[in-house]
Amino acid sequence: MQRALSVTRAENFPEWYQAVVRDADMAETSAVRGCMVIKPWGYGVWELMQGDLDRRIKATGHDNCYFPLFIPLSFIAKEAGHVEGFAKEMAVVTHHRLKNIDGKLQPDPEAELEEPLIVRPTSETIIGDAFSRWIRSYRDLPLLVNQWANVVRWEMRTRLFLRTTEFLWQEGHTAHADQAGAMEETLKMLEVYRTFSETILAMPVVAGEKPENERFPGAVNTFSIEAMMQDGKALQAGTSHYLGTGFAHAQNIRFQTDQGDWAFCHTTSWGVSTRLIGGVIMTHGDDDGLRLPPAIAPRQIVIVPMLRDKPEDAEVLAYAQAIAAELNELVALKQPVRAFVDTKPLKSAEKRWNWVRKGAPVIVEIGPRDAAGGQVTYMRRDQLRDGDKVSMQNAGRDAFIAGAPALLAAIQQSLFDEAKARLDANIVDGVTDFAGVESYFGAASADDDAAGEAFKGWLRVSWSKPTGAALDAVVERLKALKLTIRNAPVDQSKAAGSLASCLFTGEPSVETILIARSY
Amino acid sequence: MQRALSVTRAENFPEWYQAVVRDADMAETSAVRGCMVIKPWGYGVWELMQGDLDRRIKATGHDNCYFPLFIPLSFIAKEAGHVEGFAKEMAVVTHHRLKNIDGKLQPDPEAELEEPLIVRPTSETIIGDAFSRWIRSYRDLPLLVNQWANVVRWEMRTRLFLRTTEFLWQEGHTAHADQAGAMEETLKMLEVYRTFSETILAMPVVAGEKPENERFPGAVNTFSIEAMMQDGKALQAGTSHYLGTGFAHAQNIRFQTDQGDWAFCHTTSWGVSTRLIGGVIMTHGDDDGLRLPPAIAPRQIVIVPMLRDKPEDAEVLAYAQAIAAELNELVALKQPVRAFVDTKPLKSAEKRWNWVRKGAPVIVEIGPRDAAGGQVTYMRRDQLRDGDKVSMQNAGRDAFIAGAPALLAAIQQSLFDEAKARLDANIVDGVTDFAGVESYFGAASADDDAAGEAFKGWLRVSWSKPTGAALDAVVERLKALKLTIRNAPVDQSKAAGSLASCLFTGEPSVETILIARSY
Repeated sequence: MQRALSVTRAENFPEWYQAVVRDADMAETSAVRGCMVIKPWGYGVWELMQGDLDRRIKATGHDNCYFPLFIPLSFIAKEAGHVEGFAKEMAVVTHHRLKNIDGKLQPDPEAELEEPLIVRPTSETIIGDAFSRWIRSYRDLPLLVNQWANVVRWEMRTRLFLRTTEFLWQEGHTAHADQAGAMEETLKMLEVYRTFSETILAMPVVAGEKPENERFPGAVNTFSIEAMMQDGKALQAGTSHYLGTGFAHAQNIRFQTDQGDWAFCHTTSWGVSTRLIGGVIMTHGDDDGLRLPPAIAPRQIVIVPMLRDKPEDAEVLAYAQAIAAELNELVALKQPVRAFVDTKPLKSAEKRWNWVRKGAPVIVEIGPRDAAGGQVTYMRRDQLRDGDKVSMQNAGRDAFIAGAPALLAAIQQSLFDEAKARLDANIVDGVTDFAGVESYFGAASADDDAAGEAFKGWLRVSWSKPTGAALDAVVERLKALKLTIRNAPVDQSKAAGSLASCLFTGEPSVETILIARSY
Repeated sequence: MQRALSVTRAENFPEWYQAVVRDADMAETSAVRGCMVIKPWGYGVWELMQGDLDRRIKATGHDNCYFPLFIPLSFIAKEAGHVEGFAKEMAVVTHHRLKNIDGKLQPDPEAELEEPLIVRPTSETIIGDAFSRWIRSYRDLPLLVNQWANVVRWEMRTRLFLRTTEFLWQEGHTAHADQAGAMEETLKMLEVYRTFSETILAMPVVAGEKPENERFPGAVNTFSIEAMMQDGKALQAGTSHYLGTGFAHAQNIRFQTDQGDWAFCHTTSWGVSTRLIGGVIMTHGDDDGLRLPPAIAPRQIVIVPMLRDKPEDAEVLAYAQAIAAELNELVALKQPVRAFVDTKPLKSAEKRWNWVRKGAPVIVEIGPRDAAGGQVTYMRRDQLRDGDKVSMQNAGRDAFIAGAPALLAAIQQSLFDEAKARLDANIVDGVTDFAGVESYFGAASADDDAAGEAFKGWLRVSWSKPTGAALDAVVERLKALKLTIRNAPVDQSKAAGSLASCLFTGEPSVETILIARSY
């Protein structure tokens, strides 16, 4: 069967991912190591994600601010765990001027900074500095801010959207009077991420707490949402951290209580990034390219007029444009419908397949017969094939327009349902000893990007939540199989009955955790 | 008379500006030299500016993209004029890791970059690199992209919003088949900026071409919009550049023409930044603080319920909230109305003055008597005072709500009219020799931030448009008076009759230009 991509998921999942990103014209590598160029279709998806999530962040009482790109080295050094976690991957600014020396442009030695500046890998420290000025009294709490920004983490091995040296994200930062308030915020934003991911990205996730070894540097508790990609691997799609009073102590974020004494704030931070776009691709893409949930498709209904340099072209084009205009007056998924007529000077078959690869949810083809007969011929990108054949559908013009909002909503739902069924079917219970883990996952391939690796889901197992050296031992055993603990789901009701004893230590278990290979 | 600020415009304009920024809670300096923290009220204004301008940029056919923050040093070096213009103010990344050496965290000498990276001061070179890959044929032209981003120019002397080391902006970058197409684009976007500035910011501007010495480094022509601040100084509020084929040559941006041969593209770039916020403050602020045009006011109608810890508080609050809810269902200036009830635990007089200083367009005070009588008491921020007294107005509840969209539109218009009258009244014609320039402006103060400097407007004079050394001589003579040529207005019809001979050279004039002190 002819597919729109040169490689299938089954043949080589990592290569398939790259092919989708390239053929859907989402992004490309740049001349700067590890940094990507996000192209219009990819950036359009990000803008729609941003728009929706921004509304949710504001609806929960947060204000957007903007803080400096640069962080003084001394700030980073203040929180010991934090610097430990980030020092190895920081872009460091040391000079503020270039000079032509011996015919070669280079950093001017006379313009060396007294204190190097770090390009923010995250902004706890620079925002904490502002918080220490802004917060005086319990009346100033909670302080709830968010920032949309670019951040830089020097990565040795990069992959478009999934792991890049520079990426775009939002980072929420809040300060509270006590632990209860801060923890409520941490879990509230985790839930905002879960809802956003499932509703808007049609990407089902499991929300839960990360084990101690996977915490954000400096955090007391780290929570995540984890999504299952089509190769079975987990993608950490968002995190929410309760930071305790560590950052507050490091930066003197204090307030006067209603009793008149002084106390340190409890702070939180939480973020999602352009990595989500990679998650959407690996959740919904198929062997013909990307499939975009309508809520984040920059163009939801693309109309390809079949023009043949003949007199009837004008009628076909006018018919197509009238349909698009009517569609754009409608509302679907709470937003104005985004319909578009593709008038590029290309063959219509080529245009059709471009939009298939880009993942436009509905692709309409209009020929002279459609225009004359008041008909519409279209394909649903989520149900592109009937066996090997492309599945075309017909409708009367007015019925198609009237039904478009419901059609888009149905596609959004069907993409979610498909992904949810895969997630649910591939979380495996019942493994109670390490041998079972080994036999489920088999030997780890030496190559992360190995072609045709068999699909493996996630194991849900019971454990005693060891800490310190005991946890390190568990992590090492899993690492040998290229496995990690993803999280301990917030919803523990799925554990089905009483917990088995700990799969690692044999001690009584306290919760279930998810074990998986991951990105 | 008691004013809401501690300093008036007449007493000390620069200090007044700082007081408005601080007391309106717009932004503050950060621990990083020259970088600002944009606070919620300031960032909210920026978001509204962004939202509107983004629609205009998209409506003119541009797609948003995102390009790397870092630019390889070799890219910057390619265009000679460009590097000359920017080399002295660049943040240079030289290392990608920190290391603890002798107990001190510092750049790891083993992690020095082979080639230093520049934090983008502007993105012509990195975007040009992408264009050289994306453009193959005349069919790919015009290529029209825009980017919203942060940029860094190492400034020695900074002022919040007006000149900061890091700032936020949009930068459009386009490529065209010929000069005519590129010049049409350059002027189209200049006009977009003019319309945006006048319609949304209520800030009248003069659009025109910059003289040769003020061109963007590497540009063939630079156009600007110039706004008059309340101290008479000009603020360059946006620029649009025709770059010729210089950047295309430097980066090999070529296309195959419909004849089959190869040609270099003509490129443009254009941008506006958070500097516009400074322009809005200095255009509309008064001695009581900021006055925001409703189109960019994060909260347009602020309702302050006068609560007194008494039983009738509940009724007052419910009344206020019902009014806000009804207002928020309405549309004004093509956007949903943004009404807000301020329930902070502060005295209502304190809240009123906070909103006066922040420049909320309409401030409503609701007391028990208003609630009981179905009345509304409000003040228009643009007409706050009647003589020394605060001017309060009354209306029936329903009439106030029904009239709110028209009220907001009227405030938007009145702020524009006021600024336009000031601009028109202070562009002075009729000066035909340099002595006239000297006598109009008087001696220049040694201190840029001198208190109580007399208001001086702009001179509109004729000139012969000298170039090279002759222009340098003109620039030097003006510089001695702290004057600059702002631009040669696109609209030359205001020149009123035939041109006088050149004020500088005595030669026949070819156009009129504006001369002013400036930011």
